[in-house]
Amino acid sequence: MKETIGKFTISSTDGNARRGTLVTAHGIFNTPAFMPVGTQAAVKLLSPDELLELNAEIILCNTYHLSLRPGEELIGKLGGLHKFMGWNKPILTDSGGFQIYSLAKRRKLSNEGVTFQSHIDGKSVFFSPERVIEIQETLGVDIMMVLDECLPHGVDEHTTSKSLELTENWATRSLAARKNQNGLLFGIVQGGMFEKLRTRAAKHLSEQAFDGYAIGGLSVGEPTELLREMTEVSTAHLPFEKPRYLMGVGTPQDIVASVMLGVDMFDCVIPTRNARHGRAYIEQGHIDLTNSVFRTQDQPLDSACNCYCCKNFSRAYIAHLIHSNELLGIRLLTIHNLCFYQRLMADIRAAISNRRFIEFSRAFIG
Amino acid sequence: MKETIGKFTISSTDGNARRGTLVTAHGIFNTPAFMPVGTQAAVKLLSPDELLELNAEIILCNTYHLSLRPGEELIGKLGGLHKFMGWNKPILTDSGGFQIYSLAKRRKLSNEGVTFQSHIDGKSVFFSPERVIEIQETLGVDIMMVLDECLPHGVDEHTTSKSLELTENWATRSLAARKNQNGLLFGIVQGGMFEKLRTRAAKHLSEQAFDGYAIGGLSVGEPTELLREMTEVSTAHLPFEKPRYLMGVGTPQDIVASVMLGVDMFDCVIPTRNARHGRAYIEQGHIDLTNSVFRTQDQPLDSACNCYCCKNFSRAYIAHLIHSNELLGIRLLTIHNLCFYQRLMADIRAAISNRRFIEFSRAFIG
Repeated sequence: MKETIGKFTISSTDGNARRGTLVTAHGIFNTPAFMPVGTQAAVKLLSPDELLELNAEIILCNTYHLSLRPGEELIGKLGGLHKFMGWNKPILTDSGGFQIYSLAKRRKLSNEGVTFQSHIDGKSVFFSPERVIEIQETLGVDIMMVLDECLPHGVDEHTTSKSLELTENWATRSLAARKNQNGLLFGIVQGGMFEKLRTRAAKHLSEQAFDGYAIGGLSVGEPTELLREMTEVSTAHLPFEKPRYLMGVGTPQDIVASVMLGVDMFDCVIPTRNARHGRAYIEQGHIDLTNSVFRTQDQPLDSACNCYCCKNFSRAYIAHLIHSNELLGIRLLTIHNLCFYQRLMADIRAAISNRRFIEFSRAFIG
Repeated sequence: MKETIGKFTISSTDGNARRGTLVTAHGIFNTPAFMPVGTQAAVKLLSPDELLELNAEIILCNTYHLSLRPGEELIGKLGGLHKFMGWNKPILTDSGGFQIYSLAKRRKLSNEGVTFQSHIDGKSVFFSPERVIEIQETLGVDIMMVLDECLPHGVDEHTTSKSLELTENWATRSLAARKNQNGLLFGIVQGGMFEKLRTRAAKHLSEQAFDGYAIGGLSVGEPTELLREMTEVSTAHLPFEKPRYLMGVGTPQDIVASVMLGVDMFDCVIPTRNARHGRAYIEQGHIDLTNSVFRTQDQPLDSACNCYCCKNFSRAYIAHLIHSNELLGIRLLTIHNLCFYQRLMADIRAAISNRRFIEFSRAFIG
């Protein structure tokens, strides 16, 4: 019996933390979930086989980047994004809203949408809420995100409120633009660092038939406390029975703390980007393989880890590769860090099932 | 029954081409063999698992590079090069002789040895023939190369003859310096582009108890015809019953032509380096994935290939990765190119066994 696409089942809770499953057109994934980031249809250096091996169940790609290169039409013609990149499990695409923030100098906003000056060839490209849905449907992804305006930290309340109006209007237009039900559609709670605006945004979106709700505009430079507060006020006003996705977050501590606030899904470049800087996550925190102390250590990165890297290589070898600019080192660190994150999510899910998540969370965050 | 280390068995011949096996301390490999290059204890971007999957049976590392970083003593303490890099099959190390050529501006030669100014930190490091054997024994490799002077193309006969004297003297000193029989020791035929000197070198080395004989100082800018001639005159004067290794060669055509002249072993950076430039070897020659024509092609790189890359991805996807600077693209091309080379060697071996190698060679070189 095929499960209904979009069905979100919460199997256990512990405080506000929830364990569940979400059904997509490319299978079911477990929540809380961490999505490795594959912006340009590739998780840095890793093959799909390796992603499967480290138990990734869903990955994230980017609408803006893929639409510019190689173009969604080409990917559509070649059978869709899953076939194109050889990944047969769920894919979520970010909408381009984050690029409104990160490429602020290369874009112009209007009520209609946003015009980017392409970071590749400088050409003008226009994204409206409708166009962004069209691109994601052409890519054939499992979870689509609405176009939104992601603000930097430090914007005043009036400007944030005006921006939220735009984002709310775009969300409604996005829902109307959707042509089929294979791709789930998530709304995005914005509202900057203002409790009142976050509450308004969450309530407004909740009244509309989204398949899930994201919390956006965080992890943009604000202090951790504000990240927690804004997450809490957002989840508090989102429907219990729908999945919640905290965009672009975060450190292992951020993830545990946010699960405690009722978040179900995460994505972040930290495990992959930090690998490129020589950093490995371990049970006790992290180590920087660029530090010369590791050049002589015969032990694995983390003796508690069973990833391909830890099963086969010493810290000394990884440090040698990093010092010698051998990209195999970064590849092995990427495998290890993503494995660490996936194991963290599995531990979180087990702790929720066993109703000892609060304990787990206290021990983890300290 | 454990086979004797160093035993070379020729199971079939076709003209001057030979098919055989060589026994090393880390197992037997088939010849003619191609050794992927892992200069710094890593074949660019690939894991040992992937090397096994594409049927590599022996790889090459570099004495000069590993002695400088991370140092042979450290590798020795950590259990030797095989354990360090997670590769349990045969390893051959180049001696540093090629660096006398490639780092000509950073070294000083004397009868005693060569002093390099390290390409890493500028420090002086001295390599004598004895020291190079000591390094390789500490690394614990299966096949050691003697230190030799590798000359550029275009050196006159008198200078080449003087240089050959030095190389011959170093070869004798290397044999005497060897402390155990676990690492086989190969002599290297030099003599530049002079038939007379190559003949002298091959004869002189043949009188000494080397486990195998390399042909060095080729692929240094000379025309293909000269490469063939110098290979031929070298193999003609080497003992039939010992393995012959043509260093740093070459293109698929060079390899087939050299097997025809009686060569058993090869190493070359072409398949890995060209992958980094976006080039893929295919049955009909090669294609450059940087060319925009491939961006829309749904077929694999080579429909005759069964490597991980060709089984899972289209030319369009690889081209997208290359254009987007996603290193996964280079990794997949590296897998494909090395698979192409290993399949070529398997085809060569089968053709020799079936006594149709001359036919095969004619069809291949055209």
